[in-house]
Amino acid sequence: MIIFLGHKVNENQLSLAESEIQHCYKTLRKRSGDTITVHDGSGYSYEAIITDLSKKQILAEIISQTEHPRLEKLHLTIALTKSLDRIEWLVSKSVEIGVTDFTFVNCKRSEKRHFRYERMQRIIESACKQSLKYHFPTLTQSVIPFSESLLPQQEVAQRYIASYKPDNPHLSTLGDGVKSAHVMIGPEGDFTPDEVSLAVANGYTQINLGHQRLRTETAGLYAMTLLRAALDNNAIHT
Amino acid sequence: MIIFLGHKVNENQLSLAESEIQHCYKTLRKRSGDTITVHDGSGYSYEAIITDLSKKQILAEIISQTEHPRLEKLHLTIALTKSLDRIEWLVSKSVEIGVTDFTFVNCKRSEKRHFRYERMQRIIESACKQSLKYHFPTLTQSVIPFSESLLPQQEVAQRYIASYKPDNPHLSTLGDGVKSAHVMIGPEGDFTPDEVSLAVANGYTQINLGHQRLRTETAGLYAMTLLRAALDNNAIHT
Repeated sequence: MIIFLGHKVNENQLSLAESEIQHCYKTLRKRSGDTITVHDGSGYSYEAIITDLSKKQILAEIISQTEHPRLEKLHLTIALTKSLDRIEWLVSKSVEIGVTDFTFVNCKRSEKRHFRYERMQRIIESACKQSLKYHFPTLTQSVIPFSESLLPQQEVAQRYIASYKPDNPHLSTLGDGVKSAHVMIGPEGDFTPDEVSLAVANGYTQINLGHQRLRTETAGLYAMTLLRAALDNNAIHT
Repeated sequence: MIIFLGHKVNENQLSLAESEIQHCYKTLRKRSGDTITVHDGSGYSYEAIITDLSKKQILAEIISQTEHPRLEKLHLTIALTKSLDRIEWLVSKSVEIGVTDFTFVNCKRSEKRHFRYERMQRIIESACKQSLKYHFPTLTQSVIPFSESLLPQQEVAQRYIASYKPDNPHLSTLGDGVKSAHVMIGPEGDFTPDEVSLAVANGYTQINLGHQRLRTETAGLYAMTLLRAALDNNAIHT
């Protein structure tokens, strides 16, 4: 099924994303009067009839909408890496496996303190389209300080901070039955003891991610994969 | 700890990899008589004293060696993707999490049927260095036909073939206690029913990887991550 990305211009009308116009018009040769499926990242998809079509704009009138409820929350908070490529890769892959929220955090030992929000947002949208996600994950606009990145328990049921300590429990022994989880992954030099203590004082559980030496972005995807699998099994078993 | 990559030129002598010379000579200012640690991807690391040092070659004499036993086998067989970047990324990340063997397979619906062995080998070596792996993973020299990619049970204890069927068990419900595992991941269009039947007839278990629509390389890393975590837990618990 082909689902185009677009946004609502009013209650009944959609405008396709610029990046979709060529595909819709040239490749698929859609014309006025054709019915298409569109989603706007809000959790709804729409059946719509093309009303206006040019090389610069495609408008369509909504004839029905389907709600796709968001079933779970999988929030990744992570320090930026020196090369942003690696974080962009992580974000794209994490969207595929179903991460719902991203926060970039500034830790004591962080390498980098900025990223381009619009660029990251485009990466998210493109990964959503590729992997058929009806909800765009949230993304904090800028890098936030560590202390502000901790979430209250009301917001997310299971809260983890990863660090290298071998006596921490492995995440895969804990993640069963999660409906919502937040994982914090530090910079290559790890969180400082003060940062870990602050998280623990706020109710976070310390975890490790096994014996391998993982780069920041690999650790992020590793943690999200284990929680994703736990969510899927939970969904199947209940 | 800094560990240089090298190879044995004879029983007692090592030559550093070309890519290491600048780092050793210019950045770290190592000189003849200095002791360095070297590994050659064979499962051993060596303490060695530099005997010859120039901009083109660094030779060192072995004074002791340490064995790093290979504890497990994690074999990924996967179809190539249209863009090889994605497979190269997968290989690099899989080395980090501890995959020990790679095979590229030619399926009925495969997109691409070749890759550059030397280039992939360099990616493996660089990821091994980054993540401190003393054993270079094996890599089959060329893409092999599906029927030749199936492994006998004597070689690997748990053998899985992933496909989209929702009634297959999820890999994460099966992987406990693995010491050695082989996973086969098909092309974007999935394995054909004939391919799946052939694998099952050879004792392979069909699995799925959850409800998300994953690209080939993401599915590969997802499966390896779950098995890696099962291995780590097994190592901790026994």
